[in-house]
Amino acid sequence: MNILVVGSIALDHIETPAGVLDEAVGGSATYISIAASALTDGVRVVGIVGDDFPEDHVEHFRERGIDTGGLHRAAGKTFRWGGRYHEDMNERDTLYTELGVFADFRPIIPEPWKASDIVMLGNIHPSLQQHVLEQVALPRLVVCDTMNLWIQTARESLVKTIGRVDVLILNDQEAKQLTNEREVLAAGEALLSMGPSFVVIKKGEHGAMLVAKEGLFLAPAYPVPVVKDPTGAGDSFAGGFVGYIARRGNFGFDVMKQAVIAGTSAASYCVEEFGIESMRDLDTDAVMERYRKLQEWTVF
Amino acid sequence: MNILVVGSIALDHIETPAGVLDEAVGGSATYISIAASALTDGVRVVGIVGDDFPEDHVEHFRERGIDTGGLHRAAGKTFRWGGRYHEDMNERDTLYTELGVFADFRPIIPEPWKASDIVMLGNIHPSLQQHVLEQVALPRLVVCDTMNLWIQTARESLVKTIGRVDVLILNDQEAKQLTNEREVLAAGEALLSMGPSFVVIKKGEHGAMLVAKEGLFLAPAYPVPVVKDPTGAGDSFAGGFVGYIARRGNFGFDVMKQAVIAGTSAASYCVEEFGIESMRDLDTDAVMERYRKLQEWTVF
Repeated sequence: MNILVVGSIALDHIETPAGVLDEAVGGSATYISIAASALTDGVRVVGIVGDDFPEDHVEHFRERGIDTGGLHRAAGKTFRWGGRYHEDMNERDTLYTELGVFADFRPIIPEPWKASDIVMLGNIHPSLQQHVLEQVALPRLVVCDTMNLWIQTARESLVKTIGRVDVLILNDQEAKQLTNEREVLAAGEALLSMGPSFVVIKKGEHGAMLVAKEGLFLAPAYPVPVVKDPTGAGDSFAGGFVGYIARRGNFGFDVMKQAVIAGTSAASYCVEEFGIESMRDLDTDAVMERYRKLQEWTVF
Repeated sequence: MNILVVGSIALDHIETPAGVLDEAVGGSATYISIAASALTDGVRVVGIVGDDFPEDHVEHFRERGIDTGGLHRAAGKTFRWGGRYHEDMNERDTLYTELGVFADFRPIIPEPWKASDIVMLGNIHPSLQQHVLEQVALPRLVVCDTMNLWIQTARESLVKTIGRVDVLILNDQEAKQLTNEREVLAAGEALLSMGPSFVVIKKGEHGAMLVAKEGLFLAPAYPVPVVKDPTGAGDSFAGGFVGYIARRGNFGFDVMKQAVIAGTSAASYCVEEFGIESMRDLDTDAVMERYRKLQEWTVF
């Protein structure tokens, strides 16, 4: 099964207590595509970069089997984001956001990709997510990630997007904020009633929760010895999640649970090094090694 | 198997966003004993109360099969604690602490209890915990809970206690503080090297981690729809934990994992109502019902 990934592609400046990385390839579509391509072929990326975007990065995508036919290179500067994490890496300050060519991003899905099996909507404005859905014909599964910014600034549009997706992925704070619920489970159930068949609530270092009509699934995080850079963890989770589903070619509750674990595994690699460093060569064996560890560590 | 429980017995004043409770029976020994007695007979409690302590509470212990032969009633006032939880109930302010007769508490173990099978050291000064261990002869299992106060004020003594116990229970912040480690797993491994065979790290609403020479176990929290009062959750966890172990009569890694889940279940009942309210009639069926739910929700 193939996966159409739409999202941002950026050049990041990252500061964490473990060090600094500059001009690093980032953005939701980057992390999602790389993580997904560890588990499956047929990853297709749609995004926009400026004329300053290093060709090396595009080459790396291709080496991983990611089809970059939807990568639009526009005149101008690539989206740049700078962030500084606190000692407690759950907190971060945005140093700057320079949208560059991303300001005018209107995702255009190449004709042959309009019949993609799985559509993975990375974290972009919900109206752009809808614009993608209007171009694709009957995808078998639509997965959507979002962020607090859209809850605050484009709530109505976001609710509309959520009504059109099969799987909604978001973090615990966002789930509570969007539903005005105090407890994660109640938030998950409220989100489920808004349309999706599955709601995945990410809790960072505390794991994830899958809420579905069929039941509940509680996943731990993979305990990494040292976290160097949390950037992209949520996107890598989403990438591992859809990559696993594409690999299995099945959208049942059991596969969704397993996909949450595959996403957890992918995210655990992501945070161990700066940017995409620890995922450059990420493959199925690596993802499944930690998947099996998580299985061992949760059975009682 | 019987369990010797030593800890505080208090009259609590509790304020949470869900309401206020006054003159409520509390303290570590209270919650531990009640939760443990849901799973096993043979719970024995050692503690001190003042002449103002309502006989009703003692009667409730007895009705639950808790042996109160070690409950010392002294002239003076019972230990009183007042606390106010924030909107985010992970935060609380102590309104007052009036030690009363607890200031002079030197736990005296009744002669017939000196051969107890399991010793459960509730959260009291580590030197008192050692004083208990000096009185008991070759217990089969010693389990110890602690808190940040002793890490800050009696670190050396606490380290000595830890060196003498089989199972150490503490929360994630305490584990990090005591070991100067940034990650929970690293903290758990460092604590393991200090003597215990098992380290249980509680993460509140995020579950718990069991670190052992035999391996690792990651437990989720039970997702309760509404948390009314977190007071006693950690003690109820410890009570469910030792109660399950006593019931099974086995100290292997598998039983320890299951005991973490039983503790998780007990704690989930505790937080649903104020004080001990939701645990007044807690029994094995109720604990095991949520145990099985957690099993269902974690298999993938």
